[in-house]
Order: sequence, then C-alpha cells, then structure tokens
Amino acid sequence: MRPSGRNFDQLRDVSIETGVSKYAEGSCLIKFGDTHVICTATVEDKVPGWMRNSGKGWITAEYGMLPRATDSRMQREAARGGQSGRTQEIQRLIGRSIRAVADLKGMGEMQMRLDCDVIQADGGTRTASITGAYVAAHLAFQGVRRLGLIKEIPLTQPVAAISCGIYQGEAVLDLDYAEDSNAGADANFVLAGNGGIVEVQATAEDVPFDRSAYDRMFELAEKGCKELFAKQRAAIGL
Amino acid sequence: MRPSGRNFDQLRDVSIETGVSKYAEGSCLIKFGDTHVICTATVEDKVPGWMRNSGKGWITAEYGMLPRATDSRMQREAARGGQSGRTQEIQRLIGRSIRAVADLKGMGEMQMRLDCDVIQADGGTRTASITGAYVAAHLAFQGVRRLGLIKEIPLTQPVAAISCGIYQGEAVLDLDYAEDSNAGADANFVLAGNGGIVEVQATAEDVPFDRSAYDRMFELAEKGCKELFAKQRAAIGL
Amino acid sequence: MRPSGRNFDQLRDVSIETGVSKYAEGSCLIKFGDTHVICTATVEDKVPGWMRNSGKGWITAEYGMLPRATDSRMQREAARGGQSGRTQEIQRLIGRSIRAVADLKGMGEMQMRLDCDVIQADGGTRTASITGAYVAAHLAFQGVRRLGLIKEIPLTQPVAAISCGIYQGEAVLDLDYAEDSNAGADANFVLAGNGGIVEVQATAEDVPFDRSAYDRMFELAEKGCKELFAKQRAAIGL
Amino acid sequence: MRPSGRNFDQLRDVSIETGVSKYAEGSCLIKFGDTHVICTATVEDKVPGWMRNSGKGWITAEYGMLPRATDSRMQREAARGGQSGRTQEIQRLIGRSIRAVADLKGMGEMQMRLDCDVIQADGGTRTASITGAYVAAHLAFQGVRRLGLIKEIPLTQPVAAISCGIYQGEAVLDLDYAEDSNAGADANFVLAGNGGIVEVQATAEDVPFDRSAYDRMFELAEKGCKELFAKQRAAIGL
Amino acid sequence: MRPSGRNFDQLRDVSIETGVSKYAEGSCLIKFGDTHVICTATVEDKVPGWMRNSGKGWITAEYGMLPRATDSRMQREAARGGQSGRTQEIQRLIGRSIRAVADLKGMGEMQMRLDCDVIQADGGTRTASITGAYVAAHLAFQGVRRLGLIKEIPLTQPVAAISCGIYQGEAVLDLDYAEDSNAGADANFVLAGNGGIVEVQATAEDVPFDRSAYDRMFELAEKGCKELFAKQRAAIGL
Amino acid sequence: MRPSGRNFDQLRDVSIETGVSKYAEGSCLIKFGDTHVICTATVEDKVPGWMRNSGKGWITAEYGMLPRATDSRMQREAARGGQSGRTQEIQRLIGRSIRAVADLKGMGEMQMRLDCDVIQADGGTRTASITGAYVAAHLAFQGVRRLGLIKEIPLTQPVAAISCGIYQGEAVLDLDYAEDSNAGADANFVLAGNGGIVEVQATAEDVPFDRSAYDRMFELAEKGCKELFAKQRAAIGL
Repeated sequence: MRPSGRNFDQLRDVSIETGVSKYAEGSCLIKFGDTHVICTATVEDKVPGWMRNSGKGWITAEYGMLPRATDSRMQREAARGGQSGRTQEIQRLIGRSIRAVADLKGMGEMQMRLDCDVIQADGGTRTASITGAYVAAHLAFQGVRRLGLIKEIPLTQPVAAISCGIYQGEAVLDLDYAEDSNAGADANFVLAGNGGIVEVQATAEDVPFDRSAYDRMFELAEKGCKELFAKQRAAIGL
Repeated sequence: MRPSGRNFDQLRDVSIETGVSKYAEGSCLIKFGDTHVICTATVEDKVPGWMRNSGKGWITAEYGMLPRATDSRMQREAARGGQSGRTQEIQRLIGRSIRAVADLKGMGEMQMRLDCDVIQADGGTRTASITGAYVAAHLAFQGVRRLGLIKEIPLTQPVAAISCGIYQGEAVLDLDYAEDSNAGADANFVLAGNGGIVEVQATAEDVPFDRSAYDRMFELAEKGCKELFAKQRAAIGL
Repeated sequence: MRPSGRNFDQLRDVSIETGVSKYAEGSCLIKFGDTHVICTATVEDKVPGWMRNSGKGWITAEYGMLPRATDSRMQREAARGGQSGRTQEIQRLIGRSIRAVADLKGMGEMQMRLDCDVIQADGGTRTASITGAYVAAHLAFQGVRRLGLIKEIPLTQPVAAISCGIYQGEAVLDLDYAEDSNAGADANFVLAGNGGIVEVQATAEDVPFDRSAYDRMFELAEKGCKELFAKQRAAIGL
Repeated sequence: MRPSGRNFDQLRDVSIETGVSKYAEGSCLIKFGDTHVICTATVEDKVPGWMRNSGKGWITAEYGMLPRATDSRMQREAARGGQSGRTQEIQRLIGRSIRAVADLKGMGEMQMRLDCDVIQADGGTRTASITGAYVAAHLAFQGVRRLGLIKEIPLTQPVAAISCGIYQGEAVLDLDYAEDSNAGADANFVLAGNGGIVEVQATAEDVPFDRSAYDRMFELAEKGCKELFAKQRAAIGL
Repeated sequence: MRPSGRNFDQLRDVSIETGVSKYAEGSCLIKFGDTHVICTATVEDKVPGWMRNSGKGWITAEYGMLPRATDSRMQREAARGGQSGRTQEIQRLIGRSIRAVADLKGMGEMQMRLDCDVIQADGGTRTASITGAYVAAHLAFQGVRRLGLIKEIPLTQPVAAISCGIYQGEAVLDLDYAEDSNAGADANFVLAGNGGIVEVQATAEDVPFDRSAYDRMFELAEKGCKELFAKQRAAIGL
Repeated sequence: MRPSGRNFDQLRDVSIETGVSKYAEGSCLIKFGDTHVICTATVEDKVPGWMRNSGKGWITAEYGMLPRATDSRMQREAARGGQSGRTQEIQRLIGRSIRAVADLKGMGEMQMRLDCDVIQADGGTRTASITGAYVAAHLAFQGVRRLGLIKEIPLTQPVAAISCGIYQGEAVLDLDYAEDSNAGADANFVLAGNGGIVEVQATAEDVPFDRSAYDRMFELAEKGCKELFAKQRAAIGL
C-alpha cells in the first residue's frame, strides 16, 4: 500500500500549464502532484566561446529551489555562496537530456538556456524538470520558427523522465517524498519518444538490489513516460 | 499619459492569494500587475546566537528573483557565487520594515524567516515583497497562536510599501518597469497602518528634484498604502 | 541634552584637508568630529565595457573601513572574503550621489573611481564620505582641466550629505555614534547646492515616526548642508 | 577493432599496489591501464555533528585530479576556488558506493574519509577510484580491528565498478579515453560481490540507445567486476 | 647615486606618531619617507580555540593597503573577494616577527591582533609595518599593565625591520619604490634588539647574487635597525 | 643525535625518477627521504595577457598537497574553497626560483607551468619541489628543442634548494619533519649552480638566533646543493 493510495504503476496527477512567463520565449508550470516546477526557455543569439564558428547551437540548463519549497526550509544557495553538488548534478542531467534529443546543427549558432525552478517539492523534482524543460524548449523553438529563423523545430523526438523505486519490496512508479525517503532503491529514467534510453541513474539505498527489481522498474518507467509524452504533446499543441 | 493608461494616482491591479505553499507556516502570492512575488514565512524555534537568552524574537528576510523573471535573463545569483549588492539591500529593507511593526518581546525566543521570491518582475518588486511579507508573517503568527505558543499576534499594526516617481514631470503612483526606467526620480515609501513612516528611500535619477515633487509623491504613497492595507486585511481574514 | 553638548542644530567640527595622497589625482581627509575618512579620486582613461563608444564618462565609488576604525574591532572584509551588504549599500549610494551632480557627457569617455576609506568611525561615515568624495572629485577634475583634457569641470553643482535623527524626542543634526545607537529614527539626506534632493533615506528604529518629525529633520539637513557647501568651497579653492 | 587492440570484453591491465602511504590507515595505488589513482582511507574517531549519538559510523569520499593528469592541463580546482560539478558528482558517487556495502552500525561512532586522487587519467577514473577505495577502506578497517576497536570488518561484501560503452556499434568493456570520447553511450556500473546493483549510470552521448545495447553492457560489467573482485581479494590478503 | 640623493647607508626620514586611534589599545602612524602605515593593536580576552587552556597568549597580524596607496590604483581586496598571496605572506611575516620577541606565557590567555594598513606606499611597507606593529603592541601592553592584568610587558626585546638591495651594483639601505623596482636583489631583515636574527628574506631579482653582496646588505640592515630601535624607544616612552 | 641517525651534514636519500607522466612535456618524481613530490612541466604557446608582444616567455608554478600526504589528514584546498596563504607563498617561491635561472627572452613567447604536487610529506616539501621543478622544466625544454622551436635550453644554470635548521643547538642539513617541528631556526636556501644566491628565507622559531648559526647553515646548504646538482645532472642526462 503506497502512502498516497496510488497503484504501484500509477503516476501522480500531472499537469502542464504553458505560457506562465510574460517574458520567456517558452515557459510552463509543470506539476507532478505536489511537486511544482516553473520551466523557462531563453533564446540567445550567441553561443559560448568554445562553440563559436562551429555552425552549431547549444542547450544548457540551470536548476534551483525556493528555500521553502521543502518541508523544512533550506538555506538559499545564493546566500551560502554557490550551488550545491546536488544542484549541479541535476542541472547537468537536465542539459544532457534535452541535448540528447536536439539537433544542434539544425539550431544554427543560437543558445537556449533552460531554467527549472522548483516552487514546491514533494519528490521527483529532477524528473518533472526534464519533462517540463522539453515543453518549454519546444514552445521557444516554435517562436523562433514563427520568426523565420529556423524552418524545423530542432528537436528530433520528445524526452521525458520519471522515477521508480523499490518501496516495501515492490517496484513502484513516480515516488513522492514519503516513499522516496523510505525506498530501498531509487532510479531515474530519462527516455526518448522512440523508447530509447537517454539516461538511467539507479542507486541502492541501503543494500544492493537485484537485476529483476531493476527490470521491473524499467518497465514501469516505460509506461510512465508514455503517459508523460501524451501530456507533453497536448501542452505544445501537437 | 502613463504607458499603462492608469491615472497618476492609480495602483496597478493588486491581488494577494494566500496559502500557496504546502509547507510554509504562512504564504502568499502577491501581484502588483505583472509583478508577481511568492512570500513565505518560516517559523523556527531558535533565535540567532547573539540574541539567545534575550527573551526576544527576531525577524529576518531574504529576497531572490528567478533568472527569467525579467525581460532579458539575469545570471542566477547562486551560479555566480553570491547575492548582489542590490539583492542584499532589498532584503535588509524587507527585514527592517517588518521588524518596525513587530513586537519582538511578544514573539518570545522564536525566529521568523521571510522569503520573497520574484517569479515575474515589472517594477516595484521590493514594495510588493514588503506588502506580501507582512501578510505571510501575519498568517504564520496566526498558526503559532492556534498552537497556543503565543496569545497575541506580535504585530502592532500593518505595514505596506509602494513606489512613486516623477514621470514626465508629474508625480505618479506605483511605477511599472516602463515608467521606472524613464522616471526623473524614484521613491519607495514604507508606511505603517497608523500613517507613521517606517522607511523612505528617495533617489534622483539624473538631476536633483525639488521638495514639492517630494511632497506630492508622499501624498500619493499615503493614498496607495491605504488601499494596500485594505487588501492585506482581506487576505489575512480581518 | 546631546551627549556631546552640541545644540540640536549644530554640526560637529568639520574639517577638510586636501592633497593628502601623493598619488591620487584628487584627495582629501574629511573629519566630522571623530569620524575621519580619506577620500581619493582616481582618473582612468577608459570606461566600463558597457559604456564604450557612448561618448560619456562614468563615476563609481568604493567604501571601506579599517578593522579598528570602530570601538570593537570588526573583521577585515578582505579576510572574510567579500564586502558586506552594508558596505555595498553605502558605496552604491556614494556613486549615485556624485553622478547626480555630474555631467557625464562633459567628462568624455573617462572613468573616475572614488575611494572612501574610514580611518576612524564615530557615526556619519557615509555622509562624510559623500561630502569628501565631492571634494576629491572636484580636485581631480581640476587636474584633468589643467592637462587640457576637459574645458569645464563636469560637475553641475556641489553635493553634500548629513544625517539627522530623533534623539530623546527631538530632531537633531549630525548624529554621532552615541546618539545614533539610541535614536528613534535615522535619516541621511544628500542634497545638492541648489537645494534639490539627491537622495533621502529615512528609517524608523523601533517604531514608525510621524511626518512632522520627518519635516523637522529635513530642515536641519538643509541648514547642515549649507554649512558643508561652504567647507567644500574653501577646500577646493572657490 | 578497439584502439588498444583489446577484445570487446577485455579489461585493461589492472594492478593494485597497497601500502603506498606512510601515514594513511589504508592506501593503494590502483591502475586501470594508464589511469592511476592513489586511494587513501583515513579513520577519525568522531562522526559529523548530525550523526552524533546515533551509535553509527559514517563514510565519506573526496576526489581530485592533478592538473596535468590529463592530456591538456586543467586548471587546479584549489586555484579556481572550488570543486567543479563533475568532481562533486564523482565523490558523492564514491561515498554512496562504499556505504552501500558498509555496516555503519558495526563501525561504531567512527568516520572514514576516502581520498581518491588521480595521478594520471586515461578514462575510467571514477570506476578505478571506487574499486581502489574499497581496498583502502578494507585495509584501514583491518588496522582498526588489529587495535581491537572492532571485532569484524564492517564491510558486508566487496564493491567494484567498471565502465562500458557502445563503441562503433558494439558494446565494449572498460573504456579508455580514446574510446570514451567517441562512444555512442557510456555507462558506469557499480556492482556488489553478490551480483547486486549498487549504482548504474548510463548516458547516451549523441542519440538515445536501445535496451538491448544496455543489456549487453550490463553483462560485460558483470564479467569485468568479477575480475576486479579477484584483484581486490588478492590486494587485501583474502 | 640613489634617486633620492641619500647615502647608500641612509634611512629615509622615519617618524612614529603614537595614539592616532581613538579606540585601539595601542596605535601609531609610522612613516618611512613617503611610506605611511597605520598600526593598531587590539587586545581580546580570549585566544583561538586551539590554544584554549594552554595558559598562553597569541599574537596575530593582518595587513592591508588602501586601493590608491600606490601610483596606479589597485583593486580593493574586499571587492575582488579575498586577500592576495602577497598580502597573506606579509601578514604572516608580521605576526611571526612580533611573536619571536613575545613572551606568550607571560601574556596569559589573551590575544593581540595587530592591523597594519598602508595609507601610502613608496616601498618598504612590510618593514615599516613590522617596526610600527612592535610600537603599537608595546603601547597596548602598557595599557594592559596599567589595568593590572599583567605585571611585565611580555615583550622580551624590541624587533624592527628594514630592507636592503643591490642598486646599480651597490648595497643600499631602505629601498624606496624607485630603487626597489630596479634593484638586482632585494632583502628584508627582521632583527631583534640584541642583534639576533628573527627573519631574513633575500631574493634575487634577475640573476643570482653572491655571498659578499649578501654580507654587505646584512651590515647595512644592522645599522638601520639600530636607528629604528632608537625611534621605537622614543615612541614608547623608554 | 638526529632522529634519523644522519650526520649533521647529511642529506636524506635523494632520488629523481623522470618521465613519470604520460602527458606532461617534462616530469619527475623527486624523493627527499619520505617526502615525495610529482613535478610536471606544461608548455603552452601563449603568455599571460600582460606579457603579450614582449617577445619574452613566462614561467609560473603551482603547488598542492594530497590531503593525506601528512600524518593527520588536512582539509582539501579545493573543498575549502581556495589555496591557503602557505600554499600561495610556496608556489610563488618556486616560480621565482626557476625564473631566476631562466632566459625569458630565449624562451620566446611561450609559457611554462610547473606543478609540484606533494604525494607524501616528511619535511622539506618546498625544497624538494624547487629541485624537482628544475628537472621537469629542463626535460620539457629538451622536448621543445627537439621540435626545433628553440635552439638552446633557456636555462642559464641549475637551481636547487635545501633546508637547514638549528636542532638541539647544532646546525643540521635537510630537516625532516621530526626535526623541523623541534628546530630553533629554520632556513630554506635556493642556490644556483654557480654558487649564487637565488633566495634565502631564514626564520627563528622561538627566539632570535645569531649570525654564526646563520653562517653555519649557509655552509651546509652549499654542500647540500652541490649534491643535489649532481642528482639533477644525472636525471636530465647531462
């Protein structure tokens, strides 16, 4: 029995509200239950120095959390003087995930910056961030296409992410915080629309877990991402 | 003629939505037109070291902005390694403003941390932050009172803040960004419910301005704060 | 009765000694009683990157305090790894104040850096800094004019600053530390030679203060600045 | 054909030299071909503050690289003012990996610090670090046992790590740098002696990869770790 | 011929003005020609954590320079985020020098902090700092003795410092900046009142220098320090 | 009697193993007894900005220590956010020492970076670093000459360094840690092949020491450096 009463293979309620920023080229507020993330995509007409004259674009991501996004207040990263290792790890993952489905040549020399800011956290902030960042990126590219700067949206396929875990011996989909803090294993799957693997991060919590548990989590993730792809399609108007 | 079509003495649409955080002891989303700020109040049962055994409480504030809260993306303060001088200046102002109407003795040895995070910025982020922080603080104190830890809300009176400026030679109330970036003077008034002055910061933009302009701005601010006090009362259920 | 025995509208002894630096283009040691500040002006022949090719100059200021300028030693800012929020707030104020009376176009593409270093502090360090920075700037511009690089001193009028407060219920001029730490309100006025307002920062200490107290402080400030303008004129040889 | 001429399922030459530090409680120099890492284990008799009086021990890890461990010199992290995101990500992984096979209760209130310093890097520095850190930890615990402070080595089973990748369409074991920089996918497997999964991190490089490629890499990793467990056993004298 | 017209064995004009700080327990303004340093001594009644319950005191020093102490303005160390290697090297030297003539046991558990702030620099700032720091320390200890907290001044003998160099092939005493920037060797001698060596730092500038040059510099330094000891005695009233 | 049983004028066993890095243009592992330092030389084809178009090269050095190079583990400098004053002092010394025997003009506009990383420390890390850095630099210049980029090795003569101290009243050569922590004086001599002085740093530990002790240490250093020059010649193949 999961704390939330969900079935083992059931996502939390997922919603994606687009156009939440007056300024950003693309934006959405994505909710995985009580986990709420604002994702914005900023388009800049120049790439980092090391890519100049490569004819290719670049996509990068940053991640943050409001100090009271969590049950007990966390110290503000700007106040303590830098981003934690965890923050940097997550934002590197978001960037890699979107780049894995991007056609950097098709972008031309343009940079996209994705900002994922967690307003409220109840587990799964990195998976919600990746799933929402894809939507923000797509919306921003739609705008760039409307301006005639590109002909095709330079995203080859969708990408979404979901967590799975072993909770009380059973593989379950989309951990919330209550489950996450008691899970025997915790895995994040970033999957592409064609079923391909973009990234997998699986971690034993207390003791190593076996291959069959891993395989059950993988199947749940494939089911969950299919549902997320549908939400994404609706949000970006496809 | 103001860019927004408002009268010289007209606030933008102001709304205060309370209870926006699942976790914070008090919270609201305050909007001054397109300026949106999430304010949360966190209650902690211990004060900073230098206040221990004083029998008094303490209230402190922090301020932040999402990178794409503004028209062009700003660098994330956590990524560049610290808070800017402007950020520190604003959060010190927020803290002083709420403390000026707080009964620190009445709080007992408890600390309240106010976080004001700007989701979208269109001028007036510090005044919206102060106005919303008061609401978040009051709601949090209501919760503390319900727990029986205090008998009275340790806030002696409301406090609100509004900006004024000299725009095209005329004193106007509640500058938005289009006005702010062209104003000849810019003043922030933090006023208490009884009309008392909590803080005034008036700055000439290009050339010094005269006393009568100052006085006209002051009157507009008094009018504006009265309207904000009414919004605050409604939000906190008084 | 003020701790120093001064009348409510009486400045401390003010002196301005010029030419205290062998190297700086302009310099003075300004004393407001026991508050001593060395102000230097450095002229550089290039402006910050964002102003290049604007045909305009720029003026910026930095502020510091020797660790034992105060009664109990403060930690050295260079040793603790950065400037405090208070320091940044003050140096931004000094820069804005001098720029408000500067003709940036008349400067041409030249940058002036003003350094205000407090050797001894007894209240009013920011007002002494602004008042002395104007003198250092003027002296440096005199030297630039002697070199034939400019025809006119690009300062449209003098600027000076003084603090006022409510001490034991009465408005008093030019707070020293003994008063400042017990004042019910504290206001810094930066006024121009023509009586115009450059900046006002008024802060209630414990409880909000009323408009009439504010007005009395304003009048004292106007009187004080007039006396400071006379000291400045003598120092710069006008 | 692999650049090194190895078979697709062949590790580089692996050696583990123990006792390389005069001071550390446990130490080894581990080589995966041209990747050389010094691993030391330091035992401290107190745990971090948040664990005090828990009756449990703690294990933590740090990772570094000499500036010229790589083909082109990298900036020294101490000189640029902090550890990169990549460094933090790796050292967090090393710590989690060893803790997953540790009996923290069995340690008692003792802390072990593992330092993995890369002297020369040719791909696979994190997997060599984990594999060597286990050896250093075991040797240090042997010393603690000799002192009579613990009865059993508080490590429940061995842990080792190896990378796999898809190189020119084929799954290969233990990527060196020449392969790593051209691989279509890159996966790090941290496996326990009983075959259990401690951590898996799989990343697509350019385009998502499919499940069967993933499965082939997994099998190679299991083969590789078995060989590493044998090297570890020899090194620690079992 | 020296740029200043001095004899090869002639100090610049040296003066030591005491009591320049209203607050510090001991203070002086020391001038070696155009090099001016404010030295203050702060007495604190507790020692650093690692010395507690040792029954001994501690003496430490910090060094700084006003940004425009030099011919071209240097960046403020607090603004660039930390002390340079040169600054740290100098302040460590000052601390060691005074501790070498201090009776730490005789101090009891008390800490003295010496601050040497260079107001104007024309070469020899570290030697002026050491020479002045001794005076400030002695004056502060005199005050502590007057309070009856110690019976004897816990300084076993004086310490002073002077630079020498090889300028145009000849050993000269007390380099000013014009000489220092053209010297073939540069040596700082910290000598005790009894002629003992506290610290010697000799550095070749372009090419190694020979032993006889070294010996000539040493003799000059002994002569110079004798003159400095006399200035110190006068300043501290012995 | 020295703790190690060495004669007062006896070096520890010194060895220099070259070519220890697969990548660096020049490298060695130098051992002074149990003090082990890896020295690498990196050649870059551009100089720092301030030297561009000077026609001259530049040589700079960095120094580091593995956290467990010492008896008790030290905090990693990259983790605590910067290099200590001691580290900066040492790396500045290494750079100056090698530059003192370099023909910067003969280098052409090329930069050499020397990295000295202490793998194990038993006293004398800075002297071993200088002695080894010379070897790494020479080997790297040999490679540059083989490429035909320079005709002559731009090193005018060898440079080596050794420490001396007063241990139990007697001058001794090449202090190890056991001696260093009990020495009454500690001096580091950096000498050139022709006997010239490159740098001398002599420090009294508790009380000033006299000139004759200094002279005895100097003679020991000359003897020690002669032996080190022979080791260097063998290592670089001369």
